[in-house]
Order: sequence, then C-alpha cells, then structure tokens
Amino acid sequence: MLRTHTCGELRISDINREVVLAGWVQRVRNKGGLIWVDLRDRYGITQLIFEEGSGHTALLEKAASLGREFVVQAKGTVIERASKNDKIPTGEIEVRPSELNVLNPAKVPPFIIEDETDGGDDLRMKYRYLDLRRNVVREKLQLRHRMMQETRKFMDAQHFIEVETPVLIKSTPEGARDFVVPSRINPGEFYALPQSPQTFKQLLMVSGFDRYFQIVKCFRDEDLRADRQPEFTQIDCEMAFVEQEDILNTFEGLIKHLFASVKGLELGEVARMTYADAMRFYGNDKPDLRFDMKFAELNDLAQGKGFPIFDQAELIVGFCAQGAGEYTRKQIDALTDWVKRPQIGAKGLVYVKCNADGTFKSSVDKFYGQEDLKVWADRMGAKGGDLLLILSGEAPSTRKQLSELRLKMGEELGLRDRTVFKPLWVLDFPLLEWDEETKRFHAMHHPFTSPKKEDFALLDTDPGAVRANAYDLVINGVEIGGGSIRIHDRTVQQTMFRHLGFSEEEAKAQFGFLMEAFEYGAPPHGGIAFGFDRLCAIFGGSDSIRDYIAFPKNNSGRDVMIDSPSPIAVAQLEELNIALALKKS
Amino acid sequence: MLRTHTCGELRISDINREVVLAGWVQRVRNKGGLIWVDLRDRYGITQLIFEEGSGHTALLEKAASLGREFVVQAKGTVIERASKNDKIPTGEIEVRPSELNVLNPAKVPPFIIEDETDGGDDLRMKYRYLDLRRNVVREKLQLRHRMMQETRKFMDAQHFIEVETPVLIKSTPEGARDFVVPSRINPGEFYALPQSPQTFKQLLMVSGFDRYFQIVKCFRDEDLRADRQPEFTQIDCEMAFVEQEDILNTFEGLIKHLFASVKGLELGEVARMTYADAMRFYGNDKPDLRFDMKFAELNDLAQGKGFPIFDQAELIVGFCAQGAGEYTRKQIDALTDWVKRPQIGAKGLVYVKCNADGTFKSSVDKFYGQEDLKVWADRMGAKGGDLLLILSGEAPSTRKQLSELRLKMGEELGLRDRTVFKPLWVLDFPLLEWDEETKRFHAMHHPFTSPKKEDFALLDTDPGAVRANAYDLVINGVEIGGGSIRIHDRTVQQTMFRHLGFSEEEAKAQFGFLMEAFEYGAPPHGGIAFGFDRLCAIFGGSDSIRDYIAFPKNNSGRDVMIDSPSPIAVAQLEELNIALALKKS
Repeated sequence: MLRTHTCGELRISDINREVVLAGWVQRVRNKGGLIWVDLRDRYGITQLIFEEGSGHTALLEKAASLGREFVVQAKGTVIERASKNDKIPTGEIEVRPSELNVLNPAKVPPFIIEDETDGGDDLRMKYRYLDLRRNVVREKLQLRHRMMQETRKFMDAQHFIEVETPVLIKSTPEGARDFVVPSRINPGEFYALPQSPQTFKQLLMVSGFDRYFQIVKCFRDEDLRADRQPEFTQIDCEMAFVEQEDILNTFEGLIKHLFASVKGLELGEVARMTYADAMRFYGNDKPDLRFDMKFAELNDLAQGKGFPIFDQAELIVGFCAQGAGEYTRKQIDALTDWVKRPQIGAKGLVYVKCNADGTFKSSVDKFYGQEDLKVWADRMGAKGGDLLLILSGEAPSTRKQLSELRLKMGEELGLRDRTVFKPLWVLDFPLLEWDEETKRFHAMHHPFTSPKKEDFALLDTDPGAVRANAYDLVINGVEIGGGSIRIHDRTVQQTMFRHLGFSEEEAKAQFGFLMEAFEYGAPPHGGIAFGFDRLCAIFGGSDSIRDYIAFPKNNSGRDVMIDSPSPIAVAQLEELNIALALKKS
Repeated sequence: MLRTHTCGELRISDINREVVLAGWVQRVRNKGGLIWVDLRDRYGITQLIFEEGSGHTALLEKAASLGREFVVQAKGTVIERASKNDKIPTGEIEVRPSELNVLNPAKVPPFIIEDETDGGDDLRMKYRYLDLRRNVVREKLQLRHRMMQETRKFMDAQHFIEVETPVLIKSTPEGARDFVVPSRINPGEFYALPQSPQTFKQLLMVSGFDRYFQIVKCFRDEDLRADRQPEFTQIDCEMAFVEQEDILNTFEGLIKHLFASVKGLELGEVARMTYADAMRFYGNDKPDLRFDMKFAELNDLAQGKGFPIFDQAELIVGFCAQGAGEYTRKQIDALTDWVKRPQIGAKGLVYVKCNADGTFKSSVDKFYGQEDLKVWADRMGAKGGDLLLILSGEAPSTRKQLSELRLKMGEELGLRDRTVFKPLWVLDFPLLEWDEETKRFHAMHHPFTSPKKEDFALLDTDPGAVRANAYDLVINGVEIGGGSIRIHDRTVQQTMFRHLGFSEEEAKAQFGFLMEAFEYGAPPHGGIAFGFDRLCAIFGGSDSIRDYIAFPKNNSGRDVMIDSPSPIAVAQLEELNIALALKKS
C-alpha cells in the first residue's frame, strides 16, 4: 500500500493517527523555519507541515526542494492545525511527516494547475493530461461518468437490456459519410464504422428483445465543428409494441431521473410543440424556451400602407423583446448591422419602441401611424417599455433570420440562464425534405421512420406534406435527442425506399437483410437516440462538448494530444490490398 | 398503448381483468371446437382461448388462421384455467379474447423457435435475429447485460470513474495487427482502431484520475478463431498509488461480486501460483484447477535404468489420474494415439496402472521393476486404482503435451464440471520472451510493464530471467484477465524500449507523448483488463464467446447476418486518397 488515506479523507477525529498519504504537490510555503506543503489528489488537499527541530533538518531540506506537481509520499502523524481552514473538509488538521519520499519529480507545468489557470485553450488542449488535473475540468468527466451510471440504472430498472452492437459493419448510409476500414481477410472489401446502430436495434426488436438500449460510440466522417467530433456517443434506445406517446413518457422519465439524480433538480413539465408551430412561432425546430419572444406575423396589418419593402414581402414577422424599450439608437443600429451580416443575411431591421406613455416610436413612422403601431403591439403582446423587432422577406429565410435575432436578444437581455432548463418535445416532423441539389426528396430523420397513417395517402400526391411519427427532445435550444416510430412492414418500407429514389435492387442490396427480417414477424416498434456529449454539456451548463470528452480531437480530427492519425508503412497498406481494391473496382 | 400487460405478467389475482396482450404466436392447438394460442414475448407465455359460440365465428376463424411467429394483439378477459400448468408462472390463468389483431404476419421460420431447436449452427447464425428469440439464447445476452450492470455498480462503489477513451487513435502496436481507418480530412494518413486503451488509461493516471475503468470495444486484425472475434470487449481498469497486492485484492472483489450478484455463488478463495510453478506443475500458464493431476518429474528416478527413450530425454514427467486404473488396454491405446496426433506431437505414452492389490502394471515393465514403479507412484501420490501417465522428451514441449493430456483426462473423467469455478492468480510472469523468428526479445505482456525491482539488474545480463510485476486471473483454465504494475518513470521506460529493440527515434515517434507525460509527475500505477466476452462465457458455463455476442462474425470476419464487409464505390476510395497515400509512402 502506497497510502493509508486519500488527500481528502482525514478529519479532526483522526488526530494522532499514523498515516501515509500520496499525491501531487500543489503548493509549498516557507515561513520562519516552517514549511507547509499542500498535497493534492482527486479527493482533496491535505496540508503537510515540516518544522525545524532535532534530526529534522534533512526532512526540512527535502520539503524545501519540492516543486509544483512533484509526486510524493509522506508518512506521519495527524495533528490539529493551529489556524484552521474552513474552506476545505480537511482544514482542521494537518500531517506532520516523519518521512518524505519523492515518487516522481515533475518538470514545471506549462500552465498553473488550479481552478483558475493561466493556460490558453491551445496549451491546455496540447497538455490535456495536465488540464485534466484541474478540479473544474476533471469534475466535468466525473459528471459524465455519473450521467452514464444513472442512465444505466434507470434503463435497467425499466427492463431495458443493454446490447453491444458491432462496430465493424456493413455500410448503411444515414446521411453522413462513413468511415471505412479495409479488411485484411477479404481483400478489396471494407467495413464501415456505424453512424448509429439503427438497423441492429431494429433487428433486436424483431428478435423480441422488447426494450433495448446502449451507450455507444458512433462515427461520422464529416468536417468538424465546435459541437461535433468524428466519434461521438449516443444513448441509443428502442422499444417494441409502443406508440409515440409511450416513447415520450418513457424518456421524459429518463431525463427527469437524470436531472433529479445528477443535479438534484425537479425538471417539471416537458412542453410539447409541433414542428409546424416551432417553425411558425420561433423560426426554428429547436426553440429555446427559457424566454418568450414568440413570433407574430403582421402581413394582414402592415401591408397595403405604402411601405414598399413590406408590401413586396412574402412574410412580415416580428417579436416583442420585453423591457428592451430603453434600447438606444446606437444599440438598435448595432442590432441592424448584426442582422445584416452575411451569416444572418437580413436586408434590414424594423423596430417599434413602445413608450411608457402609450406612444410608439418606430423606424417606419413615415408609413404607419400610432394607431397602426398600437395594433402591431397588441398582436405581439407588448406593453410600455417593450421593443418590437420586425423582419420581412421570403418566408423561410426571414423566419430563420428572426430566430437568430431572437436568440441574440435572449442573450443580450440575460435570459439564457445556464442554471435554468426548459425541455420541449418537438413533434410531427415532416417525413421528407426536398433537396434542391439532387432534385429529390430525402428522409428528414432516416428511411426507417414511419409516416403518420392519416398522411399516408399524400405520399403520392404531396410528399412534402406528409408528417412522420418523429420527435426531437430539445433543451434550451439544443436538440439533445431524436427518434421515431419505425416502419415494421416490408411493403411500407419498400414504398418508402421507392420514394427516396432507391431502385428495388439498390434497396435490396443495402437493406435486404432488414426487409427480410420484417417478413418473419416484426413487432411495431420505435425508439430514440440522445447525443450524450451534448446532454453532458447541457447538464454542465456549457456550450462545448469538448470539455466533456477525455481526449477530444482538434479541427483536423487528430487527438489533441497524441497527434493522431499516424502514417502507416507502405508494406501494411499493400498487405491490406488497397491497391487490389482500386484495381478491382 | 399496444398492450396493457406483458405475456409473463398475469396471475390468478388478475381474473376478470380486461387486458390487451401483444406478442408472437408460439403454438396453436385446435381441439373440439376450441382453439388455444400460446402468446410469447420476452417475459413469458400466456395462453389465449377461443371458444365456439354466438358471434365468435369470425374470431375463431382468425385464430385458426394464425401461423407460428405471427405478431398479434389480443384484447380480452383474464379467466381461470380449467387445467392449470404449474410449469409456467402464468399457468393458472388464460385470456379469452374479444378481439384479435394480426399486427404482422410471419413466414414459416427456417427452424423451430423453442429451447430445443431443429436448426443447425449455420442456419441459426444466418437468421441470428430469429435464434435470439429463443429463451436459451436471449438469456445469454441478458446475462451479459447483468454482468455489465453489476461490474459498473461495483466499480462505481469503489470510486472508479468510467472514462470513454477515443476509438480513432494513433497506432500504438501491442502485439497484434491494427485495423486502419483512412482519414478524409488528412489525405494519406490513417487512424488505427485501439487494440486496448492502454496508453490512454496511463495518461489518465498521470492526470490524477486515481481509479479508471471502462467497458470498451477493442480491435485486432487477426485471423479468427472460435474464441476470438476481430472486435471484442474488455473491462479495462487502472489504479494509481498501488502495488500488485492492491490490484489483486480489488479485482478479487469484483469477481466475487459478480459471482455473488449474477450467479448467487460464493466464489471462495482465489488461489495464487507463480508462472514458474504453473509451468512446472501444469505445463500451462492457465491451469484448470477444478481437478488435481499435478505434474511430477521422474528424471532422478527413471533415468539410468536402461530405457533409452527416458535416458535420452531432457524431461520425464507425468501425473496421476485418480480412479483411472481400470482403463482398458483399448482406452490406453486410444490415449496414446491421441497424444501422437500432430496437434499434440508426443512420440509415445508411458502408463503405469496401480492395482488395488499394490502391484503395478506398466508399458515399461521390461525396464522397471515393481519397486521402481512404487517409487514413481509414491512421488505422484497415487493409490491403488489410479493410473500414471508419463511423457518424455524436450522439456517445454513435453510439458505442453502433458498439459493437453491432463485436460483430456479431466474431461474424460468428468472433472471439468461447468458449474464449478476455480479461480487462480498466476503471478511473476517473465518480463520478456525470446522470439526465434526475429531473434530478439519481445514484451510478454506489453512494453509498459515494470520489471521486479530485485530482477532489474538482470536486464543486461540475463533478460529472459527478469520477472515482471504481471499477473493473470484464470478461471477453470481460461485466462479471463491480465495486467501489470506499469513503468511510471521516463528513464526506465526508455531502457525498456531499448531492450525491446526500439531505436530512440522509434520510441519517441511511437510513444513520445507518453514518455513526455511521465516527466510531469506520473504516479506509480497499475491495472488489469478482463476479456468480457470470455468472462460471460465462463459465467454461462459455455466454451463459445459467440453465444454471448448479439451479432457475431463468421470465420471470414463478416457479420453472420448482414453479410458485411461491403464493397465501396471507387469514387469514395478516391476521395479518401488512398491512391495518394500509396504514392506518398
């Protein structure tokens, strides 16, 4: 045993105990012949005290020579501290060592290893293993561990069985690009890494597993973004003999359990909204409901009054920013510039200030009288002291721009509080999405999603209007999960593939195994998958999933620390018969 | 809700309750105007009864038309059964449906879906999703789930943190061949899939995580065997500030917890044996201790008596098969043939029968008298009724042959009982292993394993004699886990790489990140990894890990069901710049 206790364990009741501690040197202080060493490990900090005295000279010298982050072992006696520190649980005691061993010295770390550090992002990422020593960083991974444990506990109690699905699989395209893995045993052929275990979990439903889940790594060979890594983790779930309502109830249960057990928070009701309403009222399929600012359309009120921009617009839409009526001209100009940036792309911004005295001041006073503006304000539920912000133009892009402006106003007014959580089910997503580039419909969720029964007939006449049994769980404007009731019938699945432009041969080659399975007694089933990295970030009150991953990748997909990927010798490449694969195909 | 209850839930107390059940048709019986349907799901079987009567004709006809494995929904009333079935928990009741809906018909399954099936291995593997419907098969995956849950519960209670390490990594060779994944973002470069998260978990120790674990997929591009798949699952663990004894105690705890919680079994003491003793007494570094048959060497007793084969042998070694003294000449001839097969490779087999009357009968009576044989029998602890089996030749191969014979005798004598579990720590493995092919030493465990302090000086003079702080956990002759105390010092690690034939540049290119990390305060640490698939098989009393994997691969590495790997289009290959990679390297 290299230690008898951790550095977070000793208390006043341990006084006079002989102990052995081991850990990292956090700090060395030297004053009036006394030396204090703060010894740190994952569990806490314990103070060591070295005093001058007979036979202690060597020990004192050793203590004085310790540097930050040295790994040491100290044997000694627990004593009561002269001046107690009530900020840490071990603050009433200290240890007076009789022996001190340096287990491993350390170079001076490139940044300070404390909650507040002087290390920039790049340096901290390069030395991720040192950054992980900081409590605030390590605690994020401990949160992740706790989330996994509690997820599994809940799912197990609900009779879900965790099944590990394979990683080296046949490619089953799901919208993103697959990573491929050349096969040495079958020259010229390749495995794919799963974008999700979708088809496997459906097969498990055909197998009668009834309730499946898995916390599982998935892979997408996509360009990287801040909230996306080439490998990511999902909580992947599927249930048989269920309808949409059963799924919503079960996974509201999961989310509520996680908030209660991990954060000690009563989550409250999970709101529900159709996709159509989300787009209409928030311009966004993942609205942030921590604040209101619901959209109101003004076409009927604002057109035909001689303002050409509004008259020509497909849509005039705005929202009321409560309490922003005091915005200065300068602030409003800044907002106007902001929406006109190419990333947002609006042509301009119309504002109406609702004054406390019931009058209005707007950027379109030339065209609209006080009466007009009052009707607008009424529609938007505005009162004195509020600010109306209005955009106009082509409908979908104007909604999107207004959605961005809404989020910005929420941020500016301090309404996006990271300690407040507003969950929302978005329901009734469209089944298909028109793709301008390929001039055909794509599955909005994936090709296994079932259309709503009542919309099935529309598949041939108006495919874009068909709604799916598909749902997303959104928290604070972040999509943390999505799923659907699946197709479980071979004929319907074939129809679906046809509408997605697969020939019968293509569908058979790619998904024949699944359609064949459907013929042997497939139960109705559905499921959901949660983005675990994002969920952890939401729980930690952070935007960045990176903080919740032990070894993130940088923007070129390399591990931030070990400089992956690596070059491979030509001999290995040849053995893998990549050359042969190229020749063959 | 498509059901109110599962098919394993209803009891006599539910009589008169209106219920909705859904499941698979297990069986339809038709007798005297009555139809019984056994409805099955994961939770059990409930009997439906259809009776002739007014207005029931359509229902009866529908019931009569049901085929095996149809998925149906039945609404009806719970009634008491006329003839009860005490073999199933629902056997006191049945459900009289008022409504029957076929949710999905089924083709006739290719084999019978019951505990006893008529399906051969190939057919059952091809239709794995149907095989998984059988209770005996599904229960194996449920065991696996339970093992995962209990492992995580135990590890969490012991303050281990589960950390997900990356899957797309830099190649860190560990003895087997890496799978490689071409990078699209960095043309001409490749990721590797981890053979284990070894270096990552060591970095987590440098980070002060103190106790890490992970249930994690690992990958080896090796030729397939029955007990090996290209992807497999490990329980991967690492601890800081520990010595070997701490690791052994902690993980004895894990194994005991699993036996107690999953199997309700008190495991008892975990035996310990050095590698040297295991080889000497069992010819094997993973001895099966469910039975004795310990080896005894006879060189001093059997040489110099004129039997040339023994006189020329480096080693004469045998064991006593208790109670096998009645083996017939024919049985012994069969054993002789068996050891002479090329897979075993012995030249012949010497036997001594210990008769009940104290006399001996042997195949070498010509050279050895009764007194000689009695001394042999005494050394082997044999009594009347036992059989001595003796091999001779070059020492290592003879021990290996005798080990095989010992296992065969254990099998023949019924001593390898799958409900008995004999765990064993094998300790003090050699650090290095001589490789005839490359004419140099290789790390027996891996290059991060620390040598025993007292043997360190031998590294330069007699490398093969250096013992490592390495240990294996063996149960019933199967290695289920192995690990070591690691090197945590840069200088020692560099020395080790040098002894393994790495140049300084190679070591730096491959493991520079780890050696650099060691300079910033690495604590003493060590760990262990368990082969989770094997562990599940041991718990299930099976030899085959395949049974414990949802979607196994066949011998060519393809998923048994979905015919992976798949060909990839030439366009995708080109985009991946494999051609470029070949040109560059």
